[in-house]
Formats: sequence, structure tokens, C-alpha cells
Amino acid sequence: MRVAVARRSGETRVVLSGPDGARVLPFHTLAEAFAAGVLDDPSRFDGEPIASDEDLDLAPVVMGAGKVLCVGHNYRQHILEMGHGLPDYPNVFSKFNDALVGPNDPIALSDDATLWDWEAELALVIRKPAHRISTDVAEEFIAGYTVANDISARDWQRRSSQWLLGKTFERTTPVGPWLVTSDELDLSAGLTITCHVDGVEKQRSSTADLLFGPAYLVAYLSQVITLQPGDVILTGTPGGVGAAREPQERLTPGQVVTTEISGIGRLHNVCVAPEYTSSDN
Amino acid sequence: MRVAVARRSGETRVVLSGPDGARVLPFHTLAEAFAAGVLDDPSRFDGEPIASDEDLDLAPVVMGAGKVLCVGHNYRQHILEMGHGLPDYPNVFSKFNDALVGPNDPIALSDDATLWDWEAELALVIRKPAHRISTDVAEEFIAGYTVANDISARDWQRRSSQWLLGKTFERTTPVGPWLVTSDELDLSAGLTITCHVDGVEKQRSSTADLLFGPAYLVAYLSQVITLQPGDVILTGTPGGVGAAREPQERLTPGQVVTTEISGIGRLHNVCVAPEYTSSDN
Repeated sequence: MRVAVARRSGETRVVLSGPDGARVLPFHTLAEAFAAGVLDDPSRFDGEPIASDEDLDLAPVVMGAGKVLCVGHNYRQHILEMGHGLPDYPNVFSKFNDALVGPNDPIALSDDATLWDWEAELALVIRKPAHRISTDVAEEFIAGYTVANDISARDWQRRSSQWLLGKTFERTTPVGPWLVTSDELDLSAGLTITCHVDGVEKQRSSTADLLFGPAYLVAYLSQVITLQPGDVILTGTPGGVGAAREPQERLTPGQVVTTEISGIGRLHNVCVAPEYTSSDN
Repeated sequence: MRVAVARRSGETRVVLSGPDGARVLPFHTLAEAFAAGVLDDPSRFDGEPIASDEDLDLAPVVMGAGKVLCVGHNYRQHILEMGHGLPDYPNVFSKFNDALVGPNDPIALSDDATLWDWEAELALVIRKPAHRISTDVAEEFIAGYTVANDISARDWQRRSSQWLLGKTFERTTPVGPWLVTSDELDLSAGLTITCHVDGVEKQRSSTADLLFGPAYLVAYLSQVITLQPGDVILTGTPGGVGAAREPQERLTPGQVVTTEISGIGRLHNVCVAPEYTSSDN
């Protein structure tokens, strides 16, 4: 099953896509749909059928998530090629919901930052409340997977020891297009993850190279705080980011970032210089 | 004017206290009350009068805040005594809403962490949306001030470069008791901030020693993301934390943490070892 969140008539609606086609459900967010039991028995839920997925105006699929958790340094090869040892614990930070944009939305490169960079990532979404669970049961708590790009302002990220501000500029993090439920994916075999900028490949790896996998991350984070339905975890990026290139590269307005994970989907986002109204200044 | 959020009959209600006594308003959160215009003209709002503030069961006054922002290393004397130079930029991280507890609630010291520490802090609350504003107008965007203690699990905080997990354990961060509106406080003179553990003074400073003051922080953060009504910023802690003592000190279940800022109020929280139900494990 695939689940998206589409913008329709000024609000958002959950869209379900299965073998029988796609239909629009009366829920605004994944959290609402999960609470109603959509994942348990989708056939119970009627909705307006739609002819084609293509025309949907997709919002970030995890829109309204209570928690957006992110992991740094989590692909083995990338850690080792950077000359680091493998860490004992995940390096976890967060971003605010207002940073998220839809899978085809513009990425707003604020002129307050200069070193904009890409970070293709596998993201997982929580299905039901998880508190102090163990890794061996953690997969039950994962609704499914989607694609994200943790676009980062490296100059702001490096202004202090904590990365938050470089990671949470408004309208910078595309997430989507669809949430693909766990039963449709075999992560153990590894999914190919890529990032292209203006059609040039910048990142290519396999999710099999993740040091801390989805189940481990869910269990680990659940020791600290209860993960809730609709919460999202961005699991980290492989090598090939602009800051690690020689010479360094950066994103600029007009460029197109394409982020893809095999079996899940593709983000296609144009970088723009946001226009601010006079009241903003 | 003073504003609190109290628990009444299974939900929360905003309580307003002014020269004419206190009354319970039909709002659940500060954000709702601010949106309705309570700060602009409190006399417009009727509510159930209450005889005494003393009997209120207070929730964290910023309960439901969309963003909980925190600043590290922000008291000049403390930075210098630690041998650091003064930083050019605020060091900003966040915590999740589920970390917050009321001003008299227990602090849950999870047995998954061992090095629990105190951090008395001045917190400010946002009054109206702030996006790319300048420092000289930022005070208009601050509703008022309250007290917080950014209780930290130092062992988790130090597991990786990012502090989030050590800062966001569930039910660890007391905030309150009341929000005191800006017109009732003169921060330029400096407010005395203290933290006592079991009656022994551990921290004492003045908010006049803040390197990055409230207006600067609001303007700075508004460059990255729109601050919304009810969002809260914890402005950092002065010297005297347990981790910086010789020998190091830590909090344990049974201890009482008292956090106070002159002119604002006092938090009184007992540390407990949380009991987890079997379904949690």
C-alpha cells in the first residue's frame, strides 16, 4: 500500500493507493489516518476515487508530524572514507515541521545562508506509540518508508556545535512522494539511494550500508521519548555531499535536486531564492 | 499580567491573574489565548473567578508549544570561567514538547541515564509571528517570561556531538509557574536566577549576564524559521551545574530541585524514578 498527503481545495487529504487504484480519504494527516486504522484494514475506508496519481499536488507526506528526528553519520562507507571510526551511538538531532516541503515543491534557499548542500535520506514513519521497546519488535512500530533530502546550510550548521539552525530553515526539506508500507519493501536486500543535481549524480549508495538500521533507531529513540504515530526519522545520508567534495560544491537558486530510492519514489525539487514580503523584513 | 495553564477536569485551561484577581478562561493553551487577543485587551474576556492561585494544578505554561528552542553557553561569567572565549553566535538546539512538565510536577529520571544534571534558565514566550525581524523591534514579539530547568542527562548528551537526546527525555523539563508579561519586568536591570537542590544553592546569577539577550535571540532565530505565538526559547544556564563541579554532582530520585527567578516565580520539582507499565517494556 502507498499513502500520500495531497493538497485539495485549501486543505490536505490522505490519498491511498493500492491494487484497486487510488482514492482520497477524509483524513488530513498520516497520524489521523493511522489512528483510524487505515493501515490495519484499508478496505474499510471509502473515498473519492482518482483517475491518476499524476495530477496530485502533494504535500510533505509527514506534514504535521509531532517529531522530526534526524541521524547524522550513519552510512559505513561514508564514515570510514571521512577517516572516522564507527560510532557507538547514533548522532541524533531534530528539525521543525516548518522546514518540510512536498516532493515537487521549491526548496527555499534563504539569502541569509550561503553554503547550501544536499543530503539524500531514507525516512521512516512511526505507526503506533513506541516507548522503551526492543529492537527485535521495533519493525511492528514502523508504518513504512519514504524519501527525504535533509538540505543543509553548512555555514549556519557550523556556527556552533549544535546543527539545528543549519538544518531547519523554513521550506528546505522535501519529503515524499509516497509512504510505502513496510510489507512492500525488503530493506534487508538494500535499496539504492541517489541524489542528482541538474541531472549529475552526486550521491549513490545502498541502504544496506546503514550502520544503525531503522529497527535499531526506533528502539533506541523510544528509550528517551515516546514515538507517536506519524513521527518521522530521517536515517542519515551517504557520501557525496557538496561539503565533502574537492573542491566543495554548493546549491544555488535555479538548480534542480532529484532524490530517489529504488522501490519507494523520487523527489524533484527546484531551488529558489525566496521572495519575502515587506512585512517579513 | 500573569498567565498560567492549569489542569481542570481532564483538560487544560488558561488562567489570567491581574489586579482584579484571577479567572479561568476558555482557552487550552497560550497560543489559543494569544490568538484570541488576551494579551491585547484582557478585560474583554470573562471567566470563572478563582479565590486562590494556590490550589491550581499547573501544567507547563507553554504546553503544546510548536517549538521549544534552547540556547547553550549563554552566561558570560560561566563561559569565561570554563576557559572558553565568548562565541560569535548562539548555540541553539531544541527539545520535544513531551519533555515538558509543570512547575510542581515530578521530574522523571529514567534509569536509562545516569548523569542527571540541573540547568536553571530564563525562558521567553513568543507573542505573534516573527519572521526575519530585527533586534530593535524584537521585544514587541515577546509575550513575556517564565522559569525553566533544562534538566539534562549528561551521559546521553555526550554520546555524540548532538545534544538532543540528553535534553529531551520525557517529563524532565519543568516550565512555569506563570508567564509574566513583559510590561511587568525590567530585564535590563537583571533578574536574579537561582537553583537549589535539597535546599542547597547550586546556581546563582543575574540575567544581566546573558551574552545573547532575549531580543537578540528572537531576531536571530526568526532569520531561520517563523516563530509562532506560544513558541518558547530557553535562554541558557549560568555556572554551577553538577557536571562542572569538583567533584561532579548528579541528581538522584528523591531530591528536590527548586528553580527561581526574582519577579517571575519558582519551580519546585521532586526527582522520581519513573515506573513503567509492562506494556512499555
